[in-house]
Order: sequence, then C-alpha cells, then structure tokens
Amino acid sequence: MHGAERYAEFRPVDLADRTWPSRRLRTAPRWLSTDLRDGNQSLARPMSPERKLMMFELLVGMGYKEIEVGFPVASQDDHDFVRLLIERDLIPDDVRITVLTQAREELIRATLDALRGAPRAMVHIYNATSPLFRRLVFGIGRDGCRDLAVHATRVMVEHAERTLGDCDLGYQYSPELFNETELDFSLEVCEAVMDVWQPEAGRGIILNFPTTVERSLPNVFADQIEWLDRNLSRREHVCLSIHPHNDRGTGVASAELALLAGAERVEGCLFGNGERAGNVCLVTLGMNLYVQGVDPGIDFSDLNAVRDTVEQCNQLPVHPRHPYGGDLVYTAFSGSHQDAIKKGFDERERVAAATGTPAGELPWRMPYLPVDPRDVGRTYEAVVRINSQSGKGGVAYVMSARHGLNLPRGLQADLAARVQARADAEGGELSPERIGALFRERYLYRGDPSRPLPVGAEPVRAALHVDCGFVLDDEQAAAVRGLGALLAPWGIQVRAVYSTAPPLGDAEPEPGRRAPGEIVVYAECDTGAGRSTEWGAGIGADVAVCAFSAVRAAIERARACPAPTGVLADTPADAPADARAEPRRRLAAAG
Amino acid sequence: MHGAERYAEFRPVDLADRTWPSRRLRTAPRWLSTDLRDGNQSLARPMSPERKLMMFELLVGMGYKEIEVGFPVASQDDHDFVRLLIERDLIPDDVRITVLTQAREELIRATLDALRGAPRAMVHIYNATSPLFRRLVFGIGRDGCRDLAVHATRVMVEHAERTLGDCDLGYQYSPELFNETELDFSLEVCEAVMDVWQPEAGRGIILNFPTTVERSLPNVFADQIEWLDRNLSRREHVCLSIHPHNDRGTGVASAELALLAGAERVEGCLFGNGERAGNVCLVTLGMNLYVQGVDPGIDFSDLNAVRDTVEQCNQLPVHPRHPYGGDLVYTAFSGSHQDAIKKGFDERERVAAATGTPAGELPWRMPYLPVDPRDVGRTYEAVVRINSQSGKGGVAYVMSARHGLNLPRGLQADLAARVQARADAEGGELSPERIGALFRERYLYRGDPSRPLPVGAEPVRAALHVDCGFVLDDEQAAAVRGLGALLAPWGIQVRAVYSTAPPLGDAEPEPGRRAPGEIVVYAECDTGAGRSTEWGAGIGADVAVCAFSAVRAAIERARACPAPTGVLADTPADAPADARAEPRRRLAAAG
Repeated sequence: MHGAERYAEFRPVDLADRTWPSRRLRTAPRWLSTDLRDGNQSLARPMSPERKLMMFELLVGMGYKEIEVGFPVASQDDHDFVRLLIERDLIPDDVRITVLTQAREELIRATLDALRGAPRAMVHIYNATSPLFRRLVFGIGRDGCRDLAVHATRVMVEHAERTLGDCDLGYQYSPELFNETELDFSLEVCEAVMDVWQPEAGRGIILNFPTTVERSLPNVFADQIEWLDRNLSRREHVCLSIHPHNDRGTGVASAELALLAGAERVEGCLFGNGERAGNVCLVTLGMNLYVQGVDPGIDFSDLNAVRDTVEQCNQLPVHPRHPYGGDLVYTAFSGSHQDAIKKGFDERERVAAATGTPAGELPWRMPYLPVDPRDVGRTYEAVVRINSQSGKGGVAYVMSARHGLNLPRGLQADLAARVQARADAEGGELSPERIGALFRERYLYRGDPSRPLPVGAEPVRAALHVDCGFVLDDEQAAAVRGLGALLAPWGIQVRAVYSTAPPLGDAEPEPGRRAPGEIVVYAECDTGAGRSTEWGAGIGADVAVCAFSAVRAAIERARACPAPTGVLADTPADAPADARAEPRRRLAAAG
Repeated sequence: MHGAERYAEFRPVDLADRTWPSRRLRTAPRWLSTDLRDGNQSLARPMSPERKLMMFELLVGMGYKEIEVGFPVASQDDHDFVRLLIERDLIPDDVRITVLTQAREELIRATLDALRGAPRAMVHIYNATSPLFRRLVFGIGRDGCRDLAVHATRVMVEHAERTLGDCDLGYQYSPELFNETELDFSLEVCEAVMDVWQPEAGRGIILNFPTTVERSLPNVFADQIEWLDRNLSRREHVCLSIHPHNDRGTGVASAELALLAGAERVEGCLFGNGERAGNVCLVTLGMNLYVQGVDPGIDFSDLNAVRDTVEQCNQLPVHPRHPYGGDLVYTAFSGSHQDAIKKGFDERERVAAATGTPAGELPWRMPYLPVDPRDVGRTYEAVVRINSQSGKGGVAYVMSARHGLNLPRGLQADLAARVQARADAEGGELSPERIGALFRERYLYRGDPSRPLPVGAEPVRAALHVDCGFVLDDEQAAAVRGLGALLAPWGIQVRAVYSTAPPLGDAEPEPGRRAPGEIVVYAECDTGAGRSTEWGAGIGADVAVCAFSAVRAAIERARACPAPTGVLADTPADAPADARAEPRRRLAAAG
C-alpha cells in the first residue's frame, strides 16, 4: 500500500534489563472511570444531566471509588453537573470525584470554585509535553512547558486550601501526550511538579501517564513505565497512573503490560468509550483479572444491565463481539465447539454429583468459554446456537438444556443431520423452539393408538434408552426392568435398556421443557434388511406406554417410507439437500 | 466480585532471557484470511454462496494471497463453494486457497477429493492438544494425541499426490488450543509431524499456533512463540504461523508481540470477526504496520468500501470506534483537540507552500490523528465535528474546510461562543451547514443597502481582515491598499488591514464553500464606549463593497442592540445560556 513512507517508526526505549515480562498480575490496580469526561467529550450528543446521573450511579453501584465527573471550566454542563453532585450530596463517603483542568491559573481557580462544598475531591491538571505540541500548539520550549506545570501546581498549592477549606483534596498531574514525550523530559516535569507539591505521607500525588494517541506497541509503553518506575523520586508517595487510548487496538494490552511494569492505577471507560478508537475498556481489564483468579474489586455480576445503561448513556452500541459483554461472546455456532462444550457441561454435572459440590462452585474449566456466563449474569441459554455450521453436540445441548431431553448419541446424530439440512435450506439460525418442533414431528408417535402395529413377519428389534431425569418409583423401576416382557406380546424384542444422565446445563426447568415427573423413552429400532436404524421417542408417565409409543413411531415411519436409504420423510423441500449432505455430515459429526 | 477463586492463573513461561521485547517490527508477515472459515463459522446466518464470493473477491482485491475458503467436510455449503472456485477458475495465479480438516483419515481423504482440479492449494489439518481436550473430549493421552497428528500427516503424504496429481499442494498443521498445551508437548507433536512430512527446500511446512481461546497476557504468548522459535528443528523449512483470538481483548497485541518473537505469518479476519470475541483483526494489524512506516502489502486505501462489504457479508456491524475503520475514529469533538488539529493543518499548508511539496506527500505529523484519513479513503470532512464540547479551533476548522472562510482569531472565538450556546441548548451536534447558517445570520449584511449608515457623532473605527484565498488582480490590490481612503467618506476609520491565509484542509472546494474569485472582508469594529467589539463580514467581488458591508453589518447590529454587555441577539432562547456560559468559555477557549 502506497504511502507508508510518510510515517515514522516509533522510537523504542533502551531498557535491555527490563523486568516486567517476568512479572505477574496478582492484585487489582486502583481504577478511575473517565466515562463522564473523556467518554462524554467523545460523543456526538454529550450526555444530558439525566444521562450523566445515570452513569454516575452505575459507576458507584459497580464499585468505582474514583470517578472523573467533568471538565467544569470547559463546559457549562460539566460545571453544573459537578455542582449538582455536591449540592445534592450525591457522592458516597468512599467515592472521590475528580475534575480536569488545563494548567492555567484562571482555569484552576475557576475549577477550585466549582468544587466548593465537596467533602473530598481530586483536581487533575494537565499540559501537553510532547515536542510536536510544544512547538505547534504552544510555541514554547522545554523550559516553558515545564514552567506551565510548575506554575499550575503553585496555583493549586496557594489557592486550594483558601478556596476549599477542609475539603480532603487530592492532586493529580498528567504530562499529556506522555507516550510521545522524551522520557527524560516527562521525568523532569514530574519532578519539578513534585518539588512544588512536596508529596509526603498523607499528602501523596497521582502522576498520570496517558497514551493520548496510542502510537507504539504495548511493550514499548511498558518499557516507558518501568523506566519511570525506576527513576521517579519520592516513589513511595507517588501513585503511578496510566491512561491508555486504543488507536492501535492494543489499549488493553498497554494497560496490562504497564501494570506489570509498575503502574498502580488505570483510567478508562466502560466498554472502551472515548475519543476516536476510545479509552481502554475497564470491563475487559477487570474481567481479565477475574478469570485469572484476581478479584477486580468491581461488580460485573450483572453485565447485561451495565451494558444497557452504558448504551443508553452514550447512545453508542456495544459490539456483539466485545469481550465479556458482547451479545455473541458466550455463543458457539461451530459443531466441534458445541460438542466440546457439551462434554464440559456433562463432566461438570458428574463432578458435582460425585462430590456433592454445587456445580456453580466448581472450578470453571470449560472448553471455549473462558468465563462462566452465570458469573456475569448471563444464562447458558445462548451458549449454543444452531445453524448449518453446528453439529450433534450443539443440537444435543439445546435438546437437553432447553427441552430437558437427553438424547442418546445415535439419536443426536440423526436429529443433527435433519437440523443441519433445514438450516442449510433456510440459510439462517434455528431457534431452540424450532429444533424442539423438528424433534417432536420426527420422533414422537402421532398415529392412531388403536391401529395394530404394522410389524412384518419378523419381530422388531429395539434398544430402549430410558431418560430418567428423576428417581423412579418402585413400580416404574420394576416396569423398566421388565420392559422386554411387557413389549414381547407386541412383537417387540428388547435388545437392551439404557439409562441416560440427568438433564444438563440450566438447573431450572425452562419454558417448553419436559415437565418434572415425565419419563422419556427413546427407541433405536432395526427396521428390516437394507434399512437403516430408525429412532422414535415416547414421553409420558408410564414407562411401558412410552416404550411402546417410541417403537411404534420408528416402525410406522420406516414402514411408510419406501426408500431403502437415509432420505428424509420430513418435508419434500428438505429431502434433496439432506440426502446429498448426509454422508459428509456423518463424517464430520464426531469432531 | 465474588467467584474469582474459581479461576486459575495462567502459567507463564520460564524464559528469562527472552529477546523479543528488544526487537522491532520492520517487515510485514505473511497473511492468511480466515473470514470464509473461522469468520463464517461464527455467524448466526452463515454466508450464502453469493456473500462468500463477494468476500473472496474483496480479499483477492485487497491483496491477500492465502485465503482459507472453508471446511469442506463439515458443511455442504463449504464444499460446494470450494468446488465453485475451482470449477469456475476463480482463483488468481498468485492466490493459494486453504481448506481445513480434522485429523481423521476419512475426512482428510474427502478433503483432498474436494480439491480435485485446483492448481494450487493448502490442506490445513488440526487436532486439539491441550490436556483438557485430550482428557475431556477425546479420552486419550499424550501419545494418542500425537499419533492422531502423525497418522493424519501420513494420510496426507500417501493420498495427496495420488488424489491431486500435479496440484501445487502445501501442508499446514495446527496443534489446536496450542496456548493451553504444554510447550514441550506442542513441540513433540510438531516434530513428529515433521518427521513424517520431511520438510526440505521446496517442500516447506506451515506450523500454526492458535490461541484458540485467548487466556493469557500477550507477553506470555510471545514467550511461548520465542521458545518454539528457538526449539523447533528444521526451522528454515518451517513457516511459524499464529492464529490469535481475542477473548481478552488483546488479540492484536498477542499477534504483534508474537511477530517480534519469531512468528512469520498471521491468520485473522477483517475487522476481527470470528467465534465469540473474534479472531485478530487483519485491518488493525495491517494499518498498525503502515503507520509505523511498514508497507503491509495489503490495500486499505478504500477502507469504507472494505467495511461496507464486510458488514454485508457478515451481517454484523463494524463498531464506530473500531481502530482505523470505525465511523468515529477520525473525528474530534473536544475543543482542545480541534484546536491542535487546526494548527496541524495550518502548518501543513504552510510547509507545503514553502517547500512546493503537495500537502498529501508531506510526512504525516498531525495532533490526535495517527493516520491521514485520505490514506484510507476518508475525507477531512468528519475530522472535526461540533457540539457543546467543541471550541473555537473546531469551529474555525469547519468554517475553513467546509465553507472556505478563514476567520480571524477574534471572530473564531465570537462565533464559537454562539455555536456552543446553540449546541448546549439543543443537546446535540451542529452540522457544518448549520454553523455556516449561524455565521451568515450573524455577520453578513442583510439590510437595505440604500439606507444611510447609522453612525454616531464619532467615526467608526474598524480593523479589516481581507481573506485573499487567491491572487488579487492589480485593481483589487490597489483597492486593498486604499481601503482607508475609500471608506473614509462613510465615516469609517480603518485602523489596520490584515490578510488571512489561504483556505485550510481540503484542497478541493466542497459544496457550500465560497466560490473561487470571491473576496471576504471581516470587520472588527469598535462600536462605542461601553460596548464590546462587534464583528461583521462581507463577501463579494469588490473589496471596497465587501469592507463597507462588513462594517455596516457590525455597526447596525450594535446600534440595534441596546444592551452594553455581550448578551446575544441571536434568539431569545439562546441568550440566557450563552450569557451565563460566556466567561467560562472564554477562559477555556484557547486550550
């Protein structure tokens, strides 16, 4: 692609003895949400006061303790919102609001004015320190740039107490465009700021380092942070904070590697809102810690509600593939994925039953699902969705989780082939309800029960699978044991009787599921020479009636179907596609 | 958040002497698009044959040379699409299609069958190698798992030539779940596969290492890749490929750090489509190289068209904040950002004029815009969008770029305050057209030209700013020099005459802009004791008439407005908000 020569490589840091790549993330950082500032400034329609309040309450409810609520000297709305929070006493005791201002005396004084009456707050002052901005935007050199920051800090020191009395007031300074600023100059400015502020025990300072525009690989940012971590004086009184953007799509990685490198605090937005490609996503960062066993200190347990509120406040969508929060991230369409997930849920139930531990308390080790959907308030319902890419594992999962029917393996493949053919023919997804309907149409006995069983000269040989998702009473148990004898008069030879496992997935019955107390019998019938195995099912209270109905469904369909191949009797439209697809699908079904 | 204890930390790699953090990305890797496989398998509505073909043609047109086109044994649609490409001869000579299959003999043979007639192709065989999958999904140990891969490779060796004759056939093997597999076991399996394949010059092998589910920090993945890079035998015949997913939101970083660590090829999807949180985004990876001065070898110069096609094929949106391709990523709403961007464009024009280099060929160094929007087929039009968060830089940019009017600094602030008040009152964004209308209503002379000028006892003192975006002819130049004398009879004292720079931003005039050949004069008038400066403007062919109209607009408004303050005469609804906001806004305007 023409034009790359107009761009320069980002200069890396010379730090051959870096140590961050060998470190591990074992604790959560301090978090600051800038949804109401960086986030709000990036919106075509900035938040109304109502939407701002909704966002503030969401953030407080999730557990954020530092919330940047606006830029009061740059916008009347921001100013009014800060006043509203203070005057209506809406700031909980353990929450500190932050306000941003540029490093100019009259702006700092007006900012302090805006905070009158706040019990605790943070003033965050910034100026741009990069060479491009010094020259192009401010027309100043390094000294002039440093002096701006120093003077601003002096104004803070002189006016804060005078204006705000006994407000518990913190101070945060950011060299804006830090990542594009010479490292030694960032340090020089920060040291000069600290010389004025005089941090000490009980009077710390937050030094915040933004990748205002993300320009480098994330490891370069981590090197920058480790260099600072080593070289900053008064380190024990400094909270080293980062503010990553996402222009290269590596905002999350930049934050994580910087945390390894010594950063202690992260500024970001929920779902990565923010100017251009956004600020770093606080949801992803928090959940990344969670799935490594570290409590992020933030409550993501109703992530759908968080997402709904964020979408409403920002009037921007959360992408269906957004990590942890997107619509599709707990869904598997691919057959082999579904198959593995079903096996994972099977094992989980077995372990839960064997150990007496509730399934929800077992360690989460699930193929293809890095987090238990339940932990973020999602159900298992959408984990498996069915289309033409799906296989028998997925279909079996849906039949179990949504309909309470635990299909034997052969029936899973038989139904999956029919489902896939239907999905192929229609081009889209098949809902659990439609899959349930396909099952009922195909396998349940729908004939006249008074008609004689159309058996041939030979007896029908059937293997029966009894789905006992509950404890049988004595009579039923005896009937299961005696099924062979019960069905013999009808010309049915029972080859074997199997029991299937209890229902998987959701513990609560869902709408459309088999009612508690119902027995299901699946019959796998030899239907005569040259014909394939046919399946039928019976559902009801009496195991013998279920077995009889199941065999009868299979046999009647076999007898009514003249073709000696696996061609479907479902609907004429399905038949050709399925007949064509069958051999290949069978091959791949067990992935 | 409760529950983190159910998750285990990902075990890092012991590689203290890693070298990747000191390396740099200087060349583009080989790319493989898996949009038609991983991507397609993740869609609720998999692509129809028409959509598949549209995607294939897009990928070919962008310059992808390796395209995974399907999983022919898992889906009839995939099979049919592979056949269509081959039978209709749709694969360009420099493009290699890849097909995926599981490591089972009958599937491999069927896959080879599906490739009959292809001039060149790649068969990609995988099996899951992680401990969880060996135990849970396959019920095998390490030996059994390795044997699956070995046997599959034998089947390839034995049947490929027999089935496909002189097809130029490549071989790719993936240990699926590589990132969760013991490193030494991944190596063991790959070495065993190579023992069968016997790679040598002209008979290479692709070994592909997926983060099937992204579980670790990206630096851990890089360590894994560097370990492999060091330990794989026959390294010169191996193409070390990676296939990152994005479950932790660090897919791009994982890919980039792995490339530093020795990977040579990346598999991904356009805009990060793919199961769950997606595959790594090939657009972001490619553009990240581009803006570091490395040609990615892929054409992103019409990224909107790419996005439109991808959205149509996947029936999923690209998020407005998606790096490089999202709707909002070239837009600044914040006032200080807009101000810096305007200064960047100003300098660019100055340098272009001074050096005679077309602006589009200058090195790209622009505040807040990591890439020149023109390089990806975007315009500068949306770079600056105006709402209540915006400042005078943004308004001035819009007036210049969209209307061809280069406002003097004082007028920028005057108009910006009015624009901000209007945006505050309405709560949303103001289009360039509405801002132009606000300008015309406020500053252009709309009175009856035959009415006498309502000057007071004293002469009106005016500074005139002549906007000469073109070369004046001799007569006009003389008129500019003599403006004082020309206007004196009207009671107008000309304090000074300034010339403003040529229009900024887009070189081509846009709809609604001032016509070429028109002169604009801005008049900054003292309107008498106790009154602030008033601005007016005149647009036309005659510089004296323009100056007269500009002064007249300012004076008539001043005379008609009784208030001695800066209260607006715009609309009654605006006035209170603006009057209240003015002092604060003035303060922050120059950020």
